[in-house]
Amino acid sequence: MGTPTSPAGSGLVTIDRVHAARDIAAETGVDLLVLTPGSDLRYLCGYDAHAMERLTALVVPRRGEPFLVVPRLEAPMVDASPAGGLGLDLLAWDETDDPFGLLAREAGARLGTTPARVAVGARTWAEHALGVQRALAGSALEIASPVVDRLRMVKSAAEVEELALAGAAIDRVHAGMAQWLRVGRTEAEVGADIAAAIIAEGHTGVDFTIVGSGPNGASPHHELSGRPVQAGDLVVVDIGGETATGYRSDCTRTYVVGGPADAEVTEWYAVLQAAQETSTAAVRPGVTAEEVDAAARRVIEDAGWGEHFIHRTGHGIGLDTHEAPYIVAGNDLPLVPGMAFSVEPGIYLAGRCGARIEDIVVCTEDGVRILNNGSRELVELPG
Amino acid sequence: MGTPTSPAGSGLVTIDRVHAARDIAAETGVDLLVLTPGSDLRYLCGYDAHAMERLTALVVPRRGEPFLVVPRLEAPMVDASPAGGLGLDLLAWDETDDPFGLLAREAGARLGTTPARVAVGARTWAEHALGVQRALAGSALEIASPVVDRLRMVKSAAEVEELALAGAAIDRVHAGMAQWLRVGRTEAEVGADIAAAIIAEGHTGVDFTIVGSGPNGASPHHELSGRPVQAGDLVVVDIGGETATGYRSDCTRTYVVGGPADAEVTEWYAVLQAAQETSTAAVRPGVTAEEVDAAARRVIEDAGWGEHFIHRTGHGIGLDTHEAPYIVAGNDLPLVPGMAFSVEPGIYLAGRCGARIEDIVVCTEDGVRILNNGSRELVELPG
Repeated sequence: MGTPTSPAGSGLVTIDRVHAARDIAAETGVDLLVLTPGSDLRYLCGYDAHAMERLTALVVPRRGEPFLVVPRLEAPMVDASPAGGLGLDLLAWDETDDPFGLLAREAGARLGTTPARVAVGARTWAEHALGVQRALAGSALEIASPVVDRLRMVKSAAEVEELALAGAAIDRVHAGMAQWLRVGRTEAEVGADIAAAIIAEGHTGVDFTIVGSGPNGASPHHELSGRPVQAGDLVVVDIGGETATGYRSDCTRTYVVGGPADAEVTEWYAVLQAAQETSTAAVRPGVTAEEVDAAARRVIEDAGWGEHFIHRTGHGIGLDTHEAPYIVAGNDLPLVPGMAFSVEPGIYLAGRCGARIEDIVVCTEDGVRILNNGSRELVELPG
Repeated sequence: MGTPTSPAGSGLVTIDRVHAARDIAAETGVDLLVLTPGSDLRYLCGYDAHAMERLTALVVPRRGEPFLVVPRLEAPMVDASPAGGLGLDLLAWDETDDPFGLLAREAGARLGTTPARVAVGARTWAEHALGVQRALAGSALEIASPVVDRLRMVKSAAEVEELALAGAAIDRVHAGMAQWLRVGRTEAEVGADIAAAIIAEGHTGVDFTIVGSGPNGASPHHELSGRPVQAGDLVVVDIGGETATGYRSDCTRTYVVGGPADAEVTEWYAVLQAAQETSTAAVRPGVTAEEVDAAARRVIEDAGWGEHFIHRTGHGIGLDTHEAPYIVAGNDLPLVPGMAFSVEPGIYLAGRCGARIEDIVVCTEDGVRILNNGSRELVELPG
């Protein structure tokens, strides 16, 4: 049984993050940041609000003090969150008020002018983004990722420790797989047991449970089905959850159940494992995201399996399971220490089976730290 | 233990919904609908996709055939969903393709022109909405709610039965409350037991567990805390989940634990109960949403407690817990048979306690059907 390591978010969030976002906005010519419930809001001010139709927003003008717009009936929840201790002005609105007008008037007053460039969170709901734009006549909308991701992509030491704890928790779930993944049990049954174990091992929520047995393993995002696991099946198990502080786990291992893998599988699995190791070993400051992708892809292509590796090599992880940086061709972002992401090449044979190996890794000053440490072999379970 | 009533979505979704959306778009001058993962997409075509950074979209031009844009690695999941049987064209994109360009070219080809008015889902992520707009030069973005909500707001008989099953499941959870809600147990402990019961009684997911004990009950959206329940506490328990078909439950009851309520509480609780009954009884075709709100509010105001009823009376419910129609002052939408929503007045005494009574109701041909049927009295638990 895992235990939460700290009250959710406390010690992780300070007002410095909001001020850093303001500085980047000013530097890049963004007049106003508007961030709604989700990881951007939680990252910047520690308020883990539900996304809902009522507008909640952290508003950061390029000059002047930032403020929060919240439904009045949720104001007590802000105070109870880490955001309550940051000294942010709270503008509460009542059920029949226009929160967009309130936001626009206050932003204009603090800026001394109507903002021209307004950046909203990448995952802000369109109804909120367009509501803000309508209230700020003449403004142009853009996405706040270039501002916020510059901060969120580079994890502090405390954030890396949260990801390490999440990684250790999901490793414990994989270590128990023989209890659940057996011949004759359906993917859905196995998935339900895994979901319970994700919670029992120290997460507060289950993000996803992919159990792709036999031919279902060839569909990378297949989740669960009523298919019973059969003797000799390859089974892709890709699982993750959310911890009390919001940081995520995500780890894939591939199992063979009730009998050894055949020679062909053993051959290409070894290629996959080499690709995953080579790609991980490529991680260090200054190497670009696409070079990490290419390192995995080259090993698989050189062995003749390139057409079966049908997705990017990885994605950043933090308060979201998928976030910047994406480890994909075309992303020439150089890695810097603190960037955390998955390295997860896969090989998929349509209609037959698939395999994937996934670890979360962190770029360090001189290389890489791997946060998942269970065996990366094709694990044989008795069935 | 509840059982799923039908394979998720089968029998509920037909291509008629997409065609009806297209007809409303054409009638209202919208050139293109773009709907991303979430309830709009699930409602229209039965594809319950995860929201993620990779673009998945149902695209409905005002003329010509609708189509789906999906990441190639998720194409098998579309085929495995009810959407796979609707005959929609599937445009798959690879990891390094530009899905927005693909969407724009195909939409332009089907329309024979560049669309001027493009409506995106209310909850579509801003990065997707703005990506679509950028790819369709000269187009103006708006929200698709006026089109899609006209359909989603009015439940079919089959949808009402799904909501009724969800309502019966959450009623069973409330009926077991004496097992969990006891003096000395923390809200978090009670909430964990309730969450397990929500699943055990026939949901596939927990949406929320609000256990507001004593002063926490005065914060309508308070969820769980480490506060132990104390003898004599009023406790607001507002809980809901998602069923296999995606339909939601949402029901609030207020309990008094380990001793009777005092005379003042008994007095205003009776007012609250009368308000909830009066408001429910006001539901029938032709009555407006704001009249239902006013019916509850008037009872509470007339008794002198108006300033303590600090939120709207209700919200629609279906594939989302909160959706149209909202039961709030200013919403002059006339009810029609099939509209489903909550009736949930509350009275909140800041720093002391609160109470709320919530049922899901459906407007019928000649009045109202109530989908939650546990006692609406202030339920006394032994403690």
